[in-house]
Amino acid sequence: MSRFLSRRFAGLEAYVPGEQPQDMEYVKLNTNESPFPPSPEVVAAVSAYEVGRLNLYPDPACRSLKRKLADHFGLAPENVFLSNGSDDILNFCFMAFCDGERPVAFPALSYGFYLVYAELYGLDSLAVPLREGFRLDPADYRNLGRTIVIANPNAPTGRAISVEEIASILEANRDQVVVIDEAYIDFGGDSCRRLIPQYDNLLVCQTFSKAWSMAGGRLGFALGDPGLIADLEKIKFSTNPYSINRLTQIAAEAALGSANYFAANCRAVAETRAYTVAELEKLGFETVPSVANFIFTRCPRVPGGTLYRRLKEKGVLVRHWDKADIADYCRVTIGSRGQMDVFLEKVREILEEESSHA
Amino acid sequence: MSRFLSRRFAGLEAYVPGEQPQDMEYVKLNTNESPFPPSPEVVAAVSAYEVGRLNLYPDPACRSLKRKLADHFGLAPENVFLSNGSDDILNFCFMAFCDGERPVAFPALSYGFYLVYAELYGLDSLAVPLREGFRLDPADYRNLGRTIVIANPNAPTGRAISVEEIASILEANRDQVVVIDEAYIDFGGDSCRRLIPQYDNLLVCQTFSKAWSMAGGRLGFALGDPGLIADLEKIKFSTNPYSINRLTQIAAEAALGSANYFAANCRAVAETRAYTVAELEKLGFETVPSVANFIFTRCPRVPGGTLYRRLKEKGVLVRHWDKADIADYCRVTIGSRGQMDVFLEKVREILEEESSHA
Repeated sequence: MSRFLSRRFAGLEAYVPGEQPQDMEYVKLNTNESPFPPSPEVVAAVSAYEVGRLNLYPDPACRSLKRKLADHFGLAPENVFLSNGSDDILNFCFMAFCDGERPVAFPALSYGFYLVYAELYGLDSLAVPLREGFRLDPADYRNLGRTIVIANPNAPTGRAISVEEIASILEANRDQVVVIDEAYIDFGGDSCRRLIPQYDNLLVCQTFSKAWSMAGGRLGFALGDPGLIADLEKIKFSTNPYSINRLTQIAAEAALGSANYFAANCRAVAETRAYTVAELEKLGFETVPSVANFIFTRCPRVPGGTLYRRLKEKGVLVRHWDKADIADYCRVTIGSRGQMDVFLEKVREILEEESSHA
Repeated sequence: MSRFLSRRFAGLEAYVPGEQPQDMEYVKLNTNESPFPPSPEVVAAVSAYEVGRLNLYPDPACRSLKRKLADHFGLAPENVFLSNGSDDILNFCFMAFCDGERPVAFPALSYGFYLVYAELYGLDSLAVPLREGFRLDPADYRNLGRTIVIANPNAPTGRAISVEEIASILEANRDQVVVIDEAYIDFGGDSCRRLIPQYDNLLVCQTFSKAWSMAGGRLGFALGDPGLIADLEKIKFSTNPYSINRLTQIAAEAALGSANYFAANCRAVAETRAYTVAELEKLGFETVPSVANFIFTRCPRVPGGTLYRRLKEKGVLVRHWDKADIADYCRVTIGSRGQMDVFLEKVREILEEESSHA
């Protein structure tokens, strides 16, 4: 920290992203990437011709992509906001829809970035505890008088609530924005975007980073009432209007034309998830029911931190948080069947090694 | 605006980027893009193989690119910050280094985004008038007790101050951050980055959008004391850590290996600028002396707004601001020699048409 940094950031703890080691080839199950490459249409669209036009700015209003995405979801372009990944959009939401008069609430166990945003903007934030089994109870989100941010399915657990439960939260908070972060919705969840015509306080965030296999392209989007979308555009055009790469806009348009590829990949992840959970269960693991492309799992015989470190030594990266209430668990991305077999094999080795030590 | 937007943004006027029309082919001289494609090495580096790896996140710390950029400038990686374009970095600077205790100052005529950032963060901002001929006098930046932001060369004028003049500003503001926005430095200006070892209060912003022909890739960088860089990293990792596209990191590394191409393009722009200014002078235009890839010019016979509209009708886009003190002028990007010949031809047509009307 320099002597020049504004004092309001003195205590700020930045978000710590999952490791992105560049030094060796890991089986990387720690940042919830898709194991599948982008669709062949995407690879074809990002042609040498288009790369040769990188000297030109992208369209900051993303008009063409916005229209296509709106069509894809049966919405109007005025319902669509695009920006540099869903973190970028969440940042804008905390900036636009929270302040001293509108504090924020989110689940006590959820995406760790929510707390970082709250601290960044000096917000009073309420961490609403989850119930047993990491269940979210919609009744806990009534009469809070706060902007509400909920990941559905939740991270790092993978557990989802229903669209009806979300509607009940929206209904109980008509004068508050409710942000539903659906980064992981495509692997078995049910999107609440169909509630948009009924609720001007609903903002749904999604991303091309997960099911669309474009984490490297940096593209997130939000769907909602035109009023909320206009607010986000105002913030984007007051910070960094050209945030979406020219090639990414082209790639995303191509991706939208690869519906079968997308659906097949989502199905494959769901099947591999079921397989992984069943195999882990045979080894005594307890896994939170997940509809995401990751699972939150614990082994009663090996502490989470030990499992994480031993897996890393063996070339498999998963994510672990050294926090009292979840230290038993690891979050494991669902990769390809081959990657999960390596993961399971290393888990079996570790369990055997631990038994022989005991 | 929705009923949910934080009241502090009610009066905020977002930045208006130059038009990026997608409907017809213009000779586009309005957003200071390079007329040259990215280097052949860049086009080769963004291969189908790399596009096929877009399912993976980029390295948020940009370690490899940071090392190469540090080497390129004879600095250490700790002196380098990378983010999504220099607007993104300027936004972070206003956020990190300004607040109620540290207000901000910048030239009254400069990059219009500075005022937007100041309003976004509710800052007290001082617009320091330029002197005759749009000259910046370093003496006007003494004892302001403010964070200082100066574009050098300045936009939209193209006029530069010397490294010695910048040193005098740094010397007079040892306890204030001085941001020198060098987006246009490579077309004939002299970078002040060699002052970095002497001044812990100097932050130099540059971009790959102009001389590097990568406006579509979204990459800016800042050079400065490790303390300032650490502050910017903190803000980046508290807002959107993965802001730089995977392909852009690869493209930028390749661009750094194309030094001759880069230098030849910068020379070509400087030559075409001299040619354009001379031709305009023959037509009676007065042009501010520019070391940038644009010129700020006025025709005593045709108002700036008229010239802008008539050029647009004829398929040439330049930039015009409808503000009293600069309404006479247009800002014209220096494109290729062929583009400038089209521009000059259309200017001649307009002058003839105006004479025959008179």
